Amino acid sequence: MTYCVGMMLDKGLVLMSDTRTNSGVDNISVFRKMFTWNVPGERIITLLTAGNLASTQAVISQLEERMKEPDERDNIILKSPTMFQVATEIGKLLRTIIAERQDSNGVKGRGRFTASIIVAGQIAGMEPRLFMVYPEGNFIEASRDTPFFQIGETKYGRPIIIRGYDPEMSMEDAVKLLMVSFDSTLKANLSVGLPLDLQVIERNGFKPKHEHRITHDDPYFQAISSSWGDALKNAFHSLPDYSFYRED
Amino acid sequence: MTYCVGMMLDKGLVLMSDTRTNSGVDNISVFRKMFTWNVPGERIITLLTAGNLASTQAVISQLEERMKEPDERDNIILKSPTMFQVATEIGKLLRTIIAERQDSNGVKGRGRFTASIIVAGQIAGMEPRLFMVYPEGNFIEASRDTPFFQIGETKYGRPIIIRGYDPEMSMEDAVKLLMVSFDSTLKANLSVGLPLDLQVIERNGFKPKHEHRITHDDPYFQAISSSWGDALKNAFHSLPDYSFYRED
Repeated sequence: MTYCVGMMLDKGLVLMSDTRTNSGVDNISVFRKMFTWNVPGERIITLLTAGNLASTQAVISQLEERMKEPDERDNIILKSPTMFQVATEIGKLLRTIIAERQDSNGVKGRGRFTASIIVAGQIAGMEPRLFMVYPEGNFIEASRDTPFFQIGETKYGRPIIIRGYDPEMSMEDAVKLLMVSFDSTLKANLSVGLPLDLQVIERNGFKPKHEHRITHDDPYFQAISSSWGDALKNAFHSLPDYSFYRED
Repeated sequence: MTYCVGMMLDKGLVLMSDTRTNSGVDNISVFRKMFTWNVPGERIITLLTAGNLASTQAVISQLEERMKEPDERDNIILKSPTMFQVATEIGKLLRTIIAERQDSNGVKGRGRFTASIIVAGQIAGMEPRLFMVYPEGNFIEASRDTPFFQIGETKYGRPIIIRGYDPEMSMEDAVKLLMVSFDSTLKANLSVGLPLDLQVIERNGFKPKHEHRITHDDPYFQAISSSWGDALKNAFHSLPDYSFYRED
């Protein structure tokens, strides 16, 4: 499995992804699921991928036209005029790649090669945008009502984001929130694993404000992981106590 | 969907279940998923059910032999000498009922009629026991390493139980922990809904120590739901802050 989150804040975008891929529990590898294209000062676009690894890698390769000679390549992500068009092109590619795999394998409709992609970024002259692209190629855009997208193993880490998210929060606090969400997921599900990739894109920055790979010996992640247990216990004990002899 | 939890403590068993069943989002009903048989002083046995409602209701009906005349009925749960045998009989019944439905409908192997059952209780002269029965009829028993079972929509409410559970906790604290776990699940997933059923079985009590149906106007649940948000925010802010300019 996978766990990726893309979050839209007033101040910009915060993105985090794990790196575990597994085919069964005895075939586990580390693969990056966060991909960034940046023209400093003009655009920064980052994808987070979940689902069948061969399919998402094929999308990334075709976006960069890696099947052509290096000097003949044209990068859709770098040449699209708007984020909307980037999402549209990624949707088309994803749909085509999944359809090819399904057909060629005679397992059409089984959903074995399914994948989803979060598309985040900003192009100069326009607002930061955040999209979720489905395997069918269609997509939705984040809004004030739904300001973050999760893909992969989304459930364990969702309650804390629902409770903790605030569009006006600092980008540092958003990173902290995602660390807690990922820690809860890692603790509950073996198929999501360290290291994690973190990227912070500030509004009108047009370059990564901050990038970091969080490994198992990352002191901040360790501190969050150990102190969150205690903080939760304190929170729990601060709640009113239940009584078997209530009068309501 | 459904969310049910059975939890084993040193002091006894704490059980909670929701009551929502849905077939699509526009066909929602309230059905009890907690069923108790009690011979005061001798045995108390409670089932929590998840999955296809017709299948789990059929299990309950057949356990009580409701297809027979009232005075010819024999209740497997009341006559089995051990909790292990109760779990075995329930497993057999569940497997048979699911197999019949799958075959008769021509959708064998599709898993449409799947169901799981948590079996909890104590018979005099023996320890309290907690089992999870799978649709195939086999089952596992709770232990010190895995002291609680969840069925249905289990993921949202799992991190807090993993962090908060302690076998030595009071039964009141266990109720509080389950309230928080259910609140997180209700907030994240429409297919789990109020009212909730709560039962507390004290070791060597052989009757329910406490039973309660939690409705939407339950003052304690409301207090937990509203103060948990604040408590989580305080817990979150008590964590060390992230900095984009770290020296590690």
